[in-house]
Amino acid sequence: MARSEREEEVLGRIRPQAAEQEEIQRVAREIIDAVNASGRAEAMLVGSVARRTWVRGDRDLDIFMLYDPALTREQLEEQGLALARDIARRFGDEWREKYAEHPYINATIRGLDVDLVPCYRVASGAEIRSAVDRTPFHTRYIRERIAPFVDDVLLLKQFAKAGGVYGSDQMTEGFAGYLCELLILHYGGFLPLLRAAARWKPGLFIDIEEHAAKTFEEPMVVIDPVDPKRNVAASVSLSQMFSFVELCRGYLDAPSDLFFFRPAREPLTQEAFAALVAGRGTCLYAITFATPPFIPDVVVPQLRRSLEGVRALLERSGFLVNRAEEAMGEERCMLLFELFSDQMPAVVRHIGPPLWSRENAEKFAGKWRKRERFSGPYIEDGRYVVEVERRYTGAAALLASPEALGVGLGKHVKRAMEEEWAVLEGEACWSLEFAPFLTDFLQKESPLSRILQVDRENTNK
Amino acid sequence: MARSEREEEVLGRIRPQAAEQEEIQRVAREIIDAVNASGRAEAMLVGSVARRTWVRGDRDLDIFMLYDPALTREQLEEQGLALARDIARRFGDEWREKYAEHPYINATIRGLDVDLVPCYRVASGAEIRSAVDRTPFHTRYIRERIAPFVDDVLLLKQFAKAGGVYGSDQMTEGFAGYLCELLILHYGGFLPLLRAAARWKPGLFIDIEEHAAKTFEEPMVVIDPVDPKRNVAASVSLSQMFSFVELCRGYLDAPSDLFFFRPAREPLTQEAFAALVAGRGTCLYAITFATPPFIPDVVVPQLRRSLEGVRALLERSGFLVNRAEEAMGEERCMLLFELFSDQMPAVVRHIGPPLWSRENAEKFAGKWRKRERFSGPYIEDGRYVVEVERRYTGAAALLASPEALGVGLGKHVKRAMEEEWAVLEGEACWSLEFAPFLTDFLQKESPLSRILQVDRENTNK
Repeated sequence: MARSEREEEVLGRIRPQAAEQEEIQRVAREIIDAVNASGRAEAMLVGSVARRTWVRGDRDLDIFMLYDPALTREQLEEQGLALARDIARRFGDEWREKYAEHPYINATIRGLDVDLVPCYRVASGAEIRSAVDRTPFHTRYIRERIAPFVDDVLLLKQFAKAGGVYGSDQMTEGFAGYLCELLILHYGGFLPLLRAAARWKPGLFIDIEEHAAKTFEEPMVVIDPVDPKRNVAASVSLSQMFSFVELCRGYLDAPSDLFFFRPAREPLTQEAFAALVAGRGTCLYAITFATPPFIPDVVVPQLRRSLEGVRALLERSGFLVNRAEEAMGEERCMLLFELFSDQMPAVVRHIGPPLWSRENAEKFAGKWRKRERFSGPYIEDGRYVVEVERRYTGAAALLASPEALGVGLGKHVKRAMEEEWAVLEGEACWSLEFAPFLTDFLQKESPLSRILQVDRENTNK
Repeated sequence: MARSEREEEVLGRIRPQAAEQEEIQRVAREIIDAVNASGRAEAMLVGSVARRTWVRGDRDLDIFMLYDPALTREQLEEQGLALARDIARRFGDEWREKYAEHPYINATIRGLDVDLVPCYRVASGAEIRSAVDRTPFHTRYIRERIAPFVDDVLLLKQFAKAGGVYGSDQMTEGFAGYLCELLILHYGGFLPLLRAAARWKPGLFIDIEEHAAKTFEEPMVVIDPVDPKRNVAASVSLSQMFSFVELCRGYLDAPSDLFFFRPAREPLTQEAFAALVAGRGTCLYAITFATPPFIPDVVVPQLRRSLEGVRALLERSGFLVNRAEEAMGEERCMLLFELFSDQMPAVVRHIGPPLWSRENAEKFAGKWRKRERFSGPYIEDGRYVVEVERRYTGAAALLASPEALGVGLGKHVKRAMEEEWAVLEGEACWSLEFAPFLTDFLQKESPLSRILQVDRENTNK
């Protein structure tokens, strides 16, 4: 697998430098020694630093503190957090308590972002009590096998980052570092992986240890070598899977540096944004509210659920949605809707019970025969129908109404909206905070489309 | 089954008068004698006159000419039409050749509308060669049983006529005379039928002779006593079945003359029509074209198919339809559409192939990356999507475009539209010919809603 000059040059830019390596290893050593010296837990360096697959500039250090499985969950949390706090106080500039599946400490130590995570020292990846217990097994599995492929992993991670498909978080729905490592091991390198991925189809199934003990519905299944019941690729959405496929095809077809280092997109100014919206002829509406004080992995799924809830409310009320997307900013969150029309006529059809449900049908018809209506009750496909006055003929009024609170919002989103929400329209949707999001929304492109576009612009310069 | 004073009074108005009876029987006798005298066929009086179930003022006479089944179809048609023409020339003021399943002669004889229909004299209703061969069996079946129920049949026919559910033609999709007679026989009278029908559900199954030899999917199934494989109620639509049910409930609940004699509705003037449309806030569009020179039973199904074709074209193009109906006038036919909006934005999403269909996907993306577009190609659910310029942003332009011809129109409709079609908008949809249709469209009501409305208006006078 000869690497191209370009790839060697990329590696030269992304391999951690000697000084960086020494510094990070020294900090890790110090913390590990301190944990072990406590006599209360055994420290283990995990994550990409432990596997030597970290990319230059990554300043993340993951140190796990392994406890006796005889402890109860409460004891583990209490003792683990106490020890982690000690360490953080001793070495750190600042630190904070965080929660994933269970609590841990995140500290800033000599410019590094250090996670101190208590977990159980279990016998195998299949016997874990919580997701974090699995991590030490991942680290061991990769560390024992990855040596010949470290550069391939670095290239893949950089390729996936630049392409916007790196990360298993809810916002990205892409490829975790561990998944990248497994794919490199399975296919035997960066280029072999790309060549295979160019032909991926939904239902991809990879089981390196040939020990799968469960079936999965996700479009991409990579059985965890340390846990036969886990799909490492569970977080990869169909769209992100094929964004990666597209990038692989594009790179094999016409490789360029842009696949590893893509320039940030210039956000649209408010004027340019307004002009684009006018050109589309659609009606843009946004709901914004204060960002709930939780991590993206908690908030983003709630934003998505809320987005679908409000979309359904709009469509039920006759306002058809061309596209909708959500954004979580530092200050505010945004649910953005592009409507074909923001005005609906006064009349709306209201479909009642079938006539063979006699009691309901007669109640319905009797009620409406006494009320103001445009037409009906008439019979269509055996059901009563009336045409009555529509409640909301404008999308703005609907989105500002209490109905917006009753659409199955996520818990934290609902709490935030109970305080206040704003309805923005057209050009007013633009703000500095959301300019990049709005730009990507209006000029939506696949990763490869973006690269080819940048390439074209560079050529024309 | 005591009949109410009201019902007796209604019967007094609808029973044929003695003079009328004598006159119609005398004409029938003359024609029958003439047919029999020819020695070529045996004449049989069929239809409601033969069964004595005709309503005063009906001036229809159906005389069948039964031929030896040894004749070929061509011979039957040739000899049958020749004899029928002879009779029509001899007795009639005017006459014309018509086609149902096979040709017959329709003549006007002393103010009566007389059908002279050649058919085969077969051994049983199950051995027929065409639908008309069955009619003599129907007549015999009813004639032998209906005597005690003649008044009940008259009431039911008048009730169904006034309610708009009498007739098995394609426009009505209601209850044929023969079906009315069978229902009266089955339930044992007018009121027993009404009481039973008030509780009908879809899937109603009646098999008087208990000889059904086929299963049927229609909402209402009444097995033909003379043909175990035929559903006499096949033409009854779900809506008309329950329009009848509704009328039965309404009559049992609060009987009134309006169930038998409903005043015609005053059609809207153009001004009133325009005001109603404006109040609804919708966009009304009509396509009209010259009425094809065929009977309603041929044209109406084609209009319905065309209506659905154009409706699908509109909705595919983004113009959502609130309601759509068709009308066959003497001069013109109309396909009427009520749209929520007649303008769509410039942008339209165009969904391409899934990326795992690699060749198609790359062709699609490659093509669109070179063209003018609003956004994309981007990836959604694993498929390429582009946002491009919409072809028709106005409904009027779409309906006037050649696209309207390519939507699976019925044969005769297509031929008519190939000559010309007009697109009318809003108030301009109104014309004297279509005023009653447009009135029913805008003020659509179930038969019972209409009766209750008229009743209320009468009370308020």
